[in-house]
Amino acid sequence: MESPHIPSLQDIQSAARRIAPFVHHTPILTSSAIDEIAGCELFFKCENFQKVGAFKARGAANAVLKLAPSQMAKGVATHSSGNHAAALARAAKVAGIPAFIVMPSNAPEIKKKAVKGYGGQIVECEPNLKARETTLEKVVAETGATFIPPYDYWDVVEGQATCALEVLEEIPDLDILMTPVGGGGLLGGTALTSHYLKPSLQVIAGEPAGADDAYQSFHKKELIPQTGPKTIADGLLTSLGKINFQLISTYVDDILLAEEEQIKEAMRLIWERMKLVIEPSSAVPLAALLANREQFKGKRVAIILSGGNVDLAKLPF
Amino acid sequence: MESPHIPSLQDIQSAARRIAPFVHHTPILTSSAIDEIAGCELFFKCENFQKVGAFKARGAANAVLKLAPSQMAKGVATHSSGNHAAALARAAKVAGIPAFIVMPSNAPEIKKKAVKGYGGQIVECEPNLKARETTLEKVVAETGATFIPPYDYWDVVEGQATCALEVLEEIPDLDILMTPVGGGGLLGGTALTSHYLKPSLQVIAGEPAGADDAYQSFHKKELIPQTGPKTIADGLLTSLGKINFQLISTYVDDILLAEEEQIKEAMRLIWERMKLVIEPSSAVPLAALLANREQFKGKRVAIILSGGNVDLAKLPF
Repeated sequence: MESPHIPSLQDIQSAARRIAPFVHHTPILTSSAIDEIAGCELFFKCENFQKVGAFKARGAANAVLKLAPSQMAKGVATHSSGNHAAALARAAKVAGIPAFIVMPSNAPEIKKKAVKGYGGQIVECEPNLKARETTLEKVVAETGATFIPPYDYWDVVEGQATCALEVLEEIPDLDILMTPVGGGGLLGGTALTSHYLKPSLQVIAGEPAGADDAYQSFHKKELIPQTGPKTIADGLLTSLGKINFQLISTYVDDILLAEEEQIKEAMRLIWERMKLVIEPSSAVPLAALLANREQFKGKRVAIILSGGNVDLAKLPF
Repeated sequence: MESPHIPSLQDIQSAARRIAPFVHHTPILTSSAIDEIAGCELFFKCENFQKVGAFKARGAANAVLKLAPSQMAKGVATHSSGNHAAALARAAKVAGIPAFIVMPSNAPEIKKKAVKGYGGQIVECEPNLKARETTLEKVVAETGATFIPPYDYWDVVEGQATCALEVLEEIPDLDILMTPVGGGGLLGGTALTSHYLKPSLQVIAGEPAGADDAYQSFHKKELIPQTGPKTIADGLLTSLGKINFQLISTYVDDILLAEEEQIKEAMRLIWERMKLVIEPSSAVPLAALLANREQFKGKRVAIILSGGNVDLAKLPF
């Protein structure tokens, strides 16, 4: 059953134990070459190595494993064409229950293949938000499946919050912790864990200048929806969620913007110097850091590399 | 001073201690998705994360650090347009001595940049082996620098042999250990360490069918030079070295071939499923394994991913 309130530290720690058998404890890697370029000491938490290639495996696994037995039997459903779709399909497979994934008819074949590979049942719809929502409602009405949203949902946030637990256990003496921000599940969860375990830690997000609703919302202190986002960081096109905005406005220290060229450059740095395949969204925090070097000078900064699902035939290099 | 004989286990262990401050102890990663495809349990030793992006950092560091003080003062020299050039330049930089690198005038700009980045002094020559050798001789005569060959040299082999030490320490109950084979420094060193520490372990190399001199030499039991090699695995174009052939014919269990399409497919698998940037040479053992599945069925197999230096603008996908 979904938690009706902000997760406590104990909730997050329980989530970590709950999902541990089903997700990776991902490694943290460093690069002296990038440290030199950035002028600070960087620690990269490799969620690109996570199951399904993204941190989303955490939240989806947590939400599925917290379902009541009566809910379990009927399965889960969501609408998504991104990493949450694959993550939910896999979490359902692990739990032995059905997953119904509403996807726009024009979703890339590679995304559909990932969902099918985990045994998810794809329900196609017209490629617009309205059709996605009504199709999902219909699926839920027909199957009785529980809708698991990609980020605006406490059990998902609780799962994403476990990533920062691992970072802070491994590197206690950190000054700054960075994530990208799209819907805000990872950023909100990270800020919450940091608030509980190390209030002095600065939590800073990187966001594409071409999809800056979180930046706008954070600074204007009201939730401003995304309109006409344009960025290579395809995981960050979505609007900030309501509960995520609540967490972010309370616990996040800053949101910094990165231009498209800066995102591509940071992505190339991580590929070339660290030999890591990351998706563009993962490069946004480093891009924002490099665009604001003075603020990070000499600090110990961890960056969560959110995922590694990228179409190798469409690289920006 | 170069060792005049095959390194002993103690020599290899000393080399590991000698180079430890200057190279990475690289991680070993796994992939349940690739295990399922391969039908065996795989462990990938990530030398793509090594300093200079390749295992070559080990042998070069070892050879430089073993120089006598009188040799140190005059520096080191080599001819190479590959990873050994960058590795030797960096090893020399760490030791505070000059490195003279003879490179063909048509060497890729990115390779020259890497050598210059480590402070190596590039001496250009005509793009043929004869010119490389005579230019190197001239440089050595003029500077008194010590020539450090890329693989046909005991101190280099001794350094490369330290990689298998780390693999066997971390995963003692291994059935098979695989590397690619080009000049044979990594394969020879790996086979030697394995012979000392775990004689029951099978050491198997993967080689491109389009550059199969090691395969030919191994099976005909005589050193057959490479002629007209043609493969995407640009680190494996070279002929097997003399001392390397000696090690390989004594201690290696098998050499298996991989076709070009199989190499590209294995490379794509590692990029997509493991999110690792590897160069084509690194994919050759997995390609050879997948082409000979029955031989590996149910076994515990470690593969050394030799390097990650690839031109992102020229990917085969």
